[in-house]
Amino acid sequence: MRVIVDAMGGDNAPQAIIEGCVLGLKKYGELSVTLVGKQEVIEEELSKYDYNRARVDIVDARETIEMAEPAVEAIRKKKDSSMVVALNLLKQNKDAVFLTAGSTGAAVAGSTLIVKRMKGLKRPAIAPLLPTQTGKVLLLDGGANAECRPSFLAQFALMGSIYMQKVEGVENPAVGLVNNGSEAEKGNELTKAAYKLIEQMPVNFAGNAEGRDLVTGDFDVLVCDGFTGNIIMKFMEGLASALLFLLKGELKSSVRTKLGAAIAMPAFKNFKDKMDYREYGGALLLGVDAAVVKAHGSSDAKAIESAFGQVVDIIKGDVINVIREEISKIKIED
Amino acid sequence: MRVIVDAMGGDNAPQAIIEGCVLGLKKYGELSVTLVGKQEVIEEELSKYDYNRARVDIVDARETIEMAEPAVEAIRKKKDSSMVVALNLLKQNKDAVFLTAGSTGAAVAGSTLIVKRMKGLKRPAIAPLLPTQTGKVLLLDGGANAECRPSFLAQFALMGSIYMQKVEGVENPAVGLVNNGSEAEKGNELTKAAYKLIEQMPVNFAGNAEGRDLVTGDFDVLVCDGFTGNIIMKFMEGLASALLFLLKGELKSSVRTKLGAAIAMPAFKNFKDKMDYREYGGALLLGVDAAVVKAHGSSDAKAIESAFGQVVDIIKGDVINVIREEISKIKIED
Repeated sequence: MRVIVDAMGGDNAPQAIIEGCVLGLKKYGELSVTLVGKQEVIEEELSKYDYNRARVDIVDARETIEMAEPAVEAIRKKKDSSMVVALNLLKQNKDAVFLTAGSTGAAVAGSTLIVKRMKGLKRPAIAPLLPTQTGKVLLLDGGANAECRPSFLAQFALMGSIYMQKVEGVENPAVGLVNNGSEAEKGNELTKAAYKLIEQMPVNFAGNAEGRDLVTGDFDVLVCDGFTGNIIMKFMEGLASALLFLLKGELKSSVRTKLGAAIAMPAFKNFKDKMDYREYGGALLLGVDAAVVKAHGSSDAKAIESAFGQVVDIIKGDVINVIREEISKIKIED
Repeated sequence: MRVIVDAMGGDNAPQAIIEGCVLGLKKYGELSVTLVGKQEVIEEELSKYDYNRARVDIVDARETIEMAEPAVEAIRKKKDSSMVVALNLLKQNKDAVFLTAGSTGAAVAGSTLIVKRMKGLKRPAIAPLLPTQTGKVLLLDGGANAECRPSFLAQFALMGSIYMQKVEGVENPAVGLVNNGSEAEKGNELTKAAYKLIEQMPVNFAGNAEGRDLVTGDFDVLVCDGFTGNIIMKFMEGLASALLFLLKGELKSSVRTKLGAAIAMPAFKNFKDKMDYREYGGALLLGVDAAVVKAHGSSDAKAIESAFGQVVDIIKGDVINVIREEISKIKIED
């Protein structure tokens, strides 16, 4: 099992990425790592830690794609960037998994241009795992495609269902179509047409998911266009922190409530951990012809270590091969 | 100042609606009420309370539109429903405000069919006030139009800005376009085109609002299509209750945290009140040629009383006349 790591991508690269890799290597004995980036920088970081050198390769890449660079242009021009070099390695070894905390746009553009889409797949989707009242839900598309056709959403439903089954071990994942009403006839043009297509897919389609149903735990997979998914994903982050901000303000408002909050502190800590994106691993880029995991841009070592667990589950679940096979079986046109 | 009330609309009608009206009459001495619905039922409910009879009219209407009825059909067929009769009264007296906790779909369809749109306005929008870290934000469209053209969004920006100025007293409301990225060139086809139109409107356009910015308080008005707005509005409700559910679970998990929570209880109560939709009044239906306030379907007497405060502010702010005038000044085509 091999994970190819973009050592230079992310707000805290390369330090946090490399520390996370060392932690991940310790925890997951079956994994080997290929670190891609400036060789001397990687070597210097690695020299801070004890680790099994036999399980680590370094591949030199002299350039770095910055978070805010125009994605397609960056991929085309920076042939010697850690992202492009790593994706070329992935293309040669499609059983490996690519892990990056770098620019989402560049990861999407690079994966599509270099590794290419699976045969028969219309568009890859970004698929983050979000916390719910009872567990996790996979949202796709989280932002790869601002405009979608109904057939894209039908394929997202299939890919998401396979992922939750093979990687998260959910037996018969309930798939929901994000919509503005629960009845089948509700929606905009896209979701009305997508509803009919998803009904024909070999998934457990549980119908429309309204805004209030997204994180109840009633759905295991949520399907939507990338514009809507991007807003949901980021709103979740923003709203959770706004609510905690407001609650904190109330708890600090009197001596009594301050005391209560201090006593109840372990509960707040557990709650914060549950909400912590670092516990949820990275977002998958599903539909690319190999596994690409996009960790949060602000990932620290712990987040990278968590992502290693996800990498192991992806390889063990053979999820890319299963998706590739299922997608090729079903022709959808629109 | 007159408020025309749909006495039969809402999950808790007519009891909670009429109790709320009595409370509202007490609190706002300048208001008169026209209650629309089954006369004998209204009279029986009113008989439970002390109130100033001179300030209450009853207009009989024998039918009721149910929450789940197909909206346009219901408005066309049920000519003697409380909703249709009330809207006809509003059409005769456009200085009044119509308040209903009944079906949103019926309120939108009925207002558009009976009272009609303002001259030059493309589409009315549902405009709920949502809580933020620092105050309130007006979201529009919250669900009246699942499909929008860019010009609709530009008019929403103008209407929302006027509302926040005239009714909420915000001096120079910051208008945000809900989008999947902060840069001007980001978005889907709709938001890219809308961005350029909103730039030309006489509003304080503060650019794109990403999901994580929606409730920080950086924006006073958020503009989006009704599909996206519906999901944001309902997700806010769902996520807030999911987060509280998870936090409650943690607080109950040990004797220590239970004790702390009990001591800090006043803070939790204040927090819950801040999140309470009943404190925020109803959603406006902006763009109809008179003021229509849609209270939450599950409104209790307190929510109706709050809505009376909003009614007073709407009339005092002369907001409908100002919007009517501003909309007629600016021609937009797309």
